[in-house]
Amino acid sequence: MKLQNVLPEDIEKRSMEIIGEELGEVKLDPEKIDIIKRVIHTSADFDYARTMKFSEGVVKKALAALQAGATIITDTNMAFTGINKPGLAKLGAKAVCYMAEPEIAEIAKAKGETRAAACMEKACEIEGPVIIAVGNAPTALVRLDELIKEGKIKPELVIGVPVGFVNVVESKQIIMNSGVPYIVADGRKGGSNIAAAICNALIYTLTRK
Amino acid sequence: MKLQNVLPEDIEKRSMEIIGEELGEVKLDPEKIDIIKRVIHTSADFDYARTMKFSEGVVKKALAALQAGATIITDTNMAFTGINKPGLAKLGAKAVCYMAEPEIAEIAKAKGETRAAACMEKACEIEGPVIIAVGNAPTALVRLDELIKEGKIKPELVIGVPVGFVNVVESKQIIMNSGVPYIVADGRKGGSNIAAAICNALIYTLTRK
Repeated sequence: MKLQNVLPEDIEKRSMEIIGEELGEVKLDPEKIDIIKRVIHTSADFDYARTMKFSEGVVKKALAALQAGATIITDTNMAFTGINKPGLAKLGAKAVCYMAEPEIAEIAKAKGETRAAACMEKACEIEGPVIIAVGNAPTALVRLDELIKEGKIKPELVIGVPVGFVNVVESKQIIMNSGVPYIVADGRKGGSNIAAAICNALIYTLTRK
Repeated sequence: MKLQNVLPEDIEKRSMEIIGEELGEVKLDPEKIDIIKRVIHTSADFDYARTMKFSEGVVKKALAALQAGATIITDTNMAFTGINKPGLAKLGAKAVCYMAEPEIAEIAKAKGETRAAACMEKACEIEGPVIIAVGNAPTALVRLDELIKEGKIKPELVIGVPVGFVNVVESKQIIMNSGVPYIVADGRKGGSNIAAAICNALIYTLTRK
């Protein structure tokens, strides 16, 4: 087996070409294609070409939110770590994750809820436009839907890509019915890496021109 | 669609039960099953039951290395972030990632190599047992194989789960032929989340008794 001779700076470009070639006949909306390709780039899983769901006009709205200095809140420190910070800084936007804060653990314990759900409550206090990126905990999406219905938060975008086996599929359905702009990976698949990839695809659209 | 009523502390247990049920007839080596199940737990992707490759006796060796206070070096800060630090601390082991260090960027630029390859060179300086966890960069595995052949490093375990389209499959073959203990996800799939999940499966085997 022979290694391809590709320069470090060309690996990503070549990867995206291969993804494009293999997607082949699959018709993807031009607005969505960069996001879907980056998710496949991060997972090598072409299932996402079929499962990713976008609410009407969501990409345009998400880009506008980032340009308006949105705060991205993630439900894992892994997703937070994976988000491109220099790109965010260029846009005057930022990312936060509250999961490891002692206050969150205390609230979650007292209420008998997950820490991710407690993070969504804290997200209601964020000033300015908010993007919620959930790559792990379906309980975050379920709690978020409640907070939206109570009028306590109005996210510009919900990235709903928790992964797993308990209430994951259900939580994605709930958030797709909540009336907020969403990007969701339907089914069980997703993850912190997928959440970060979606954020980065949006960031790169604005910063890598 | 109705949510299942599962307590926060029971979600992981219930998830593992579902994974076990769906794996059903697939015969998995008892030594490997916890690792494979945790990888599926983190990805919802049952392909891994088929693609994960283990060198002879690797799990026993990896557990011994962790108990001897091994240093895990990752090729992404995402994987580093995903590794369970309290568990590592209990074992007197630790994790490091050099990717964001300015020195690494300088070396990589000067040599025309990836930062991940430069990290492998720096890993040669680590004292004590070393576990290499590669979830992103095939170039890290290729450079690591060279360093092993030059006698500059002798890892107790190589977790080879880079993801992607350029030299990923090839780099995994190379490391499986390098004579070191390995856990590899054959094919294109893998990722920082998969690398962290494998580390955590090993850590939990020792710390969650």
